[in-house]
Amino acid sequence: MTAHSGRHFLQIPGPTNVPDRVLQAIAQPTIDHRGPDFAELALELLQRVKPAFGTSGPVVIYPSSGTGAWEAALVNTLSPGDRVLSFETGHFATLWRDMAERLGLVIDFVPGDWRRGVDPRVVAERLAADKAHSIAAVMVVHNETSTGVTSRVPEIRAAIDEADHPALLLVDTISSLASIDYRHEEWGVDVTVSCSQKGLMLPPGLGFNAVSEKALAATASARLPKSYWDWAPILEANERGYYPYTPPTNRFYGLREALLLLEEEGLPNVFARHNRHAEATRAAVRGWGLEVLCADEREYSSSLTAVLMGEEHDADKVRRIILERFDMSLGAGLGKLAGRVFRIGHLGDFNDLTLAGTLSGVQMGLELAGVPVDPAGLQAALEVLRAG
Amino acid sequence: MTAHSGRHFLQIPGPTNVPDRVLQAIAQPTIDHRGPDFAELALELLQRVKPAFGTSGPVVIYPSSGTGAWEAALVNTLSPGDRVLSFETGHFATLWRDMAERLGLVIDFVPGDWRRGVDPRVVAERLAADKAHSIAAVMVVHNETSTGVTSRVPEIRAAIDEADHPALLLVDTISSLASIDYRHEEWGVDVTVSCSQKGLMLPPGLGFNAVSEKALAATASARLPKSYWDWAPILEANERGYYPYTPPTNRFYGLREALLLLEEEGLPNVFARHNRHAEATRAAVRGWGLEVLCADEREYSSSLTAVLMGEEHDADKVRRIILERFDMSLGAGLGKLAGRVFRIGHLGDFNDLTLAGTLSGVQMGLELAGVPVDPAGLQAALEVLRAG
Repeated sequence: MTAHSGRHFLQIPGPTNVPDRVLQAIAQPTIDHRGPDFAELALELLQRVKPAFGTSGPVVIYPSSGTGAWEAALVNTLSPGDRVLSFETGHFATLWRDMAERLGLVIDFVPGDWRRGVDPRVVAERLAADKAHSIAAVMVVHNETSTGVTSRVPEIRAAIDEADHPALLLVDTISSLASIDYRHEEWGVDVTVSCSQKGLMLPPGLGFNAVSEKALAATASARLPKSYWDWAPILEANERGYYPYTPPTNRFYGLREALLLLEEEGLPNVFARHNRHAEATRAAVRGWGLEVLCADEREYSSSLTAVLMGEEHDADKVRRIILERFDMSLGAGLGKLAGRVFRIGHLGDFNDLTLAGTLSGVQMGLELAGVPVDPAGLQAALEVLRAG
Repeated sequence: MTAHSGRHFLQIPGPTNVPDRVLQAIAQPTIDHRGPDFAELALELLQRVKPAFGTSGPVVIYPSSGTGAWEAALVNTLSPGDRVLSFETGHFATLWRDMAERLGLVIDFVPGDWRRGVDPRVVAERLAADKAHSIAAVMVVHNETSTGVTSRVPEIRAAIDEADHPALLLVDTISSLASIDYRHEEWGVDVTVSCSQKGLMLPPGLGFNAVSEKALAATASARLPKSYWDWAPILEANERGYYPYTPPTNRFYGLREALLLLEEEGLPNVFARHNRHAEATRAAVRGWGLEVLCADEREYSSSLTAVLMGEEHDADKVRRIILERFDMSLGAGLGKLAGRVFRIGHLGDFNDLTLAGTLSGVQMGLELAGVPVDPAGLQAALEVLRAG
């Protein structure tokens, strides 16, 4: 009955709520993408975007989804038949593996239970065993959007170094960038893959590759076919603020505004806010008597929380009731987790009272679905929020 | 620390949150207010606005605040020295009384304790005692925005009829229109005063007078000076869809969209939603162990709730903490109630989870201000919301 008054609660783990300032920026008139105004904007943005990735090197921006940026990372650096090491941390790591296979790569796939991130010890073991250095790249999803598990990239980097292995480190930061602390350069990542519609608070439509010098060097021998995704002509045109094909000009206005918002809040504050909201969400889940899917507290995700239901309850029914009664969208369980988990997104443009509203809706939805929950859950979350 | 992420919670009792569709409508290009497109829009709107007032008669729209619409109601119907009957139901009734005095009217002011609405028995007594019919009008604030008390207009109408008195009935619906059930025609109101920025979900800038045939007839002998507020030239120009001076064209686009939103939800559903949110809010207040200012349950306001604090606590301090920590604006205590109450607005474009967020913020703010509250308050509100 109240579905159409007030704002929809978009609490899937992305696309996230787009701030009004960003929407208004995007709504400006489209300009000539070969004119001086665009070049000025692009030259500014290509610098301004770097801190979000923690890099001083180039960031390639595509008119694409995040999936496109996955493909770009692979085709620019690898050759047909190259071996890559990949980890079954969840649905998206599996999809990226599938893409690599379709492109003609050979995958070493380390199975997982979808409740843990990449184990750095396994990375070290696999690479140490690869005496011939036939593994060309390690593919890691930093924050698994399907599970709410954040892999420890610095420890993975240390494992690669420990094995003294030359493999490239390719990291998907789709649902972590600008929400969870991430440092492309300091952590020695070679290609960082990301997109616009999560922590960057934009509508879908931009894909990103932050590129290390080693990744750039790898392009010299990379023989996977590429054209649209080819870094070289883009980086060349970027030097003068242009693109080899039509860039999404209005999205660039939005990206500029989103980056200004992140600068105004300050990235350390943005990360602290996400950590705090994630902690409050876990306090609610535990208070309700339910289980957080992530099994290792070192790997808790600050951008989303996946909630594991008992076998006797249908997570999709809970989501349906919440959408119908409280006009809130939550993430479904994906792949192996279908029907068993629901996911609460708490990333992007979000604040304490919207989180309180979100958790209130989840609590009421669980109760309406007949899931026995202790209403102390919400109160436990408020205690975290109140503590500041 | 989270003040600038996510949306501000604008939970004062108006101006209220403006729906995105309304903001977008207002953002269209300004058109010629003497051209055919404007006439078409105005002719449509002057009809479309009537159900919101519960009238089939004319509604005069001013580029003004609600205060302007107060003045219009008086100057169109009354003459210098006319007696009017007015009731001290709160801050705004007192301000309207002051205006009437400044305009040269003579006021019979019935004192009140700011916790109750207009007493229909007092209306009946005062009018019965006025054998000479020297009282020209009864001025009633339907919903006192300063106290969260809603006067019972049908009973006031019945009291006037019982006294068989010819006084005009002038009603301020500033914070009730399109939030709380209101029927200009059925309740025999002569002038209904309203504005754009509360239940109509627009930015401030429009004032309204819905006018009965009796009020129109009263203009023949009304001698208070008037020009800008004069109904006659407006109603004459309105016949062809025009205005005697420049109308606020872009606000008219917004009004059209807001009326469409109200039609889509259906006014009975809009009123039921406000009743339910008000009931949940009162459940929270009582659960916290605090007092609802409104002393008569027949007069509970469905658009706002004023919360009375104990003498030992400063309501403004609570509001300040809530603004600083949770980015939410609440209404202050006005006039006599300064520092002793705060007001929670729950009118306009609003839904269950935003109310849950609002009440969570109030609860945390009270706790942070050192006001002893029982956290069961929020849970009591959720039980009302969950019950549907």
